[in-house]
Amino acid sequence: MPYEFKATRRVEFSDTDMAGIVHFSKFFQYMETVEHGFFRSLGFSVILPHHTPPLGLPRVHASCDYKRPLRFEDLLELHLIVTEKKARTLAYEIRFRRLEPGPTEEVAVGKLVVVCVQKDADGKMRAVELPAALADQLQVAPAGLLVE
Amino acid sequence: MPYEFKATRRVEFSDTDMAGIVHFSKFFQYMETVEHGFFRSLGFSVILPHHTPPLGLPRVHASCDYKRPLRFEDLLELHLIVTEKKARTLAYEIRFRRLEPGPTEEVAVGKLVVVCVQKDADGKMRAVELPAALADQLQVAPAGLLVE
Amino acid sequence: MPYEFKATRRVEFSDTDMAGIVHFSKFFQYMETVEHGFFRSLGFSVILPHHTPPLGLPRVHASCDYKRPLRFEDLLELHLIVTEKKARTLAYEIRFRRLEPGPTEEVAVGKLVVVCVQKDADGKMRAVELPAALADQLQVAPAGLLVE
Amino acid sequence: MPYEFKATRRVEFSDTDMAGIVHFSKFFQYMETVEHGFFRSLGFSVILPHHTPPLGLPRVHASCDYKRPLRFEDLLELHLIVTEKKARTLAYEIRFRRLEPGPTEEVAVGKLVVVCVQKDADGKMRAVELPAALADQLQVAPAGLLVE
Repeated sequence: MPYEFKATRRVEFSDTDMAGIVHFSKFFQYMETVEHGFFRSLGFSVILPHHTPPLGLPRVHASCDYKRPLRFEDLLELHLIVTEKKARTLAYEIRFRRLEPGPTEEVAVGKLVVVCVQKDADGKMRAVELPAALADQLQVAPAGLLVE
Repeated sequence: MPYEFKATRRVEFSDTDMAGIVHFSKFFQYMETVEHGFFRSLGFSVILPHHTPPLGLPRVHASCDYKRPLRFEDLLELHLIVTEKKARTLAYEIRFRRLEPGPTEEVAVGKLVVVCVQKDADGKMRAVELPAALADQLQVAPAGLLVE
Repeated sequence: MPYEFKATRRVEFSDTDMAGIVHFSKFFQYMETVEHGFFRSLGFSVILPHHTPPLGLPRVHASCDYKRPLRFEDLLELHLIVTEKKARTLAYEIRFRRLEPGPTEEVAVGKLVVVCVQKDADGKMRAVELPAALADQLQVAPAGLLVE
Repeated sequence: MPYEFKATRRVEFSDTDMAGIVHFSKFFQYMETVEHGFFRSLGFSVILPHHTPPLGLPRVHASCDYKRPLRFEDLLELHLIVTEKKARTLAYEIRFRRLEPGPTEEVAVGKLVVVCVQKDADGKMRAVELPAALADQLQVAPAGLLVE
């Protein structure tokens, strides 16, 4: 049962700012990209549209520790690792590695905590259990992977 | 009956790219900001939520001619002028002027054409007439303003 | 000598807005993505860093005509066609086609006009000729392609 | 000597995603907006351009805890509090409060840690001391404010 997923992404010009590096807020969009790729690999879309009412996975926590700057056209590996699975929440660690130009090096480490919600008729979001069809397909990574 | 609206905006760091200037795609977000400010000034939100089913105003055309670069912390005047009003569509011209640092100068001129749509039960968008409560509150600018 | 280039891209969650479709300003970022991919395919980075002083390609015009909405996870084909090549400027048409979910359909058509500039010591941008090493590698598309 | 700063901001349409709420990555752009407003209020631009070589303040850590969703046209108060000042780094807490539509409520709490860097001739960033002219103008908030 999978507990990790990798995707690559090339830095785009519009991801950079006037300091000549990727804007720090973009790292959070990259984290989401690999999360959604992970769900797609499991046969799920993140908006879980087969449920009535539809479910969503908003974030309750997001963080990033930046070690090195990323630049235009760098090729990035995004490595998602499931660190926690509870009835209503999931947590991941996302490791950012620059593959090109080499040598490979760690660029940043991020974290997301998401909660499964259902939109009520009045538009309010209410936390609900993760659908079994999704939760049954992923597991928490073994401890060794996390202390890497 | 109003046919124009002005707003100011300070360029933010995350609007810039590694060339040290505002990314060209941001000008389109600025155009939307002044359009929505215009609607708010008329007592309307752009999503027109008082209608059942709700109406929206997606764009069918957007363009921009860039004359000078914009930089971080520049103070910008956005000047929207209504150039066309039909049963289902509106068109505006948006003039970008830098106010600070002075002297004031033209930076860009943009254009938006929007169509009023209604989301059907199957999620498809269908063009419908602009609600009278909105259409009756705005008019096309006199020709003199446009040939400025 | 190449006059066109294709790239694919999957729509990301952060590309969408509360209307449930891709925000119209994102189409301009997509246009840039395929332009830069085209340059990379010719062995060039868009920032042309091998030149002293460095050259850039800011936009003097950008436009888009929207035919159909794009949604989260749609797979998009971006097809760039060179429509004009002058001493200091290039123009492209960019056709947006949805590949998935099928059947394939036209979504939008965009246009960019870019000018080659050099940053002077005082930070001012000055239009200069396109470097021969780039200009010699691309040509205007034959007329038949454009009247498609 | 100031240790806090407040700014307001209205949520824009392009800040939202298809879930109908502000995308979580935008909160980090909002944090930067109030930080830069704080620096401007002290007479400084964040890029500190009067220094040779120019200094910058990239982030080494960014995080956000989300309590309630933000929606289009909400009026937001951003409240920055200086929580740490060292020779080369600053840390802030940023509190997000919705002012409209009322009643006022806490929406999120963010944190940024920034380091002062200087770009060397080879483009590498090197941590350096905060310029005294900036550091001497701000101080860490008293403990009472932080345990609020």
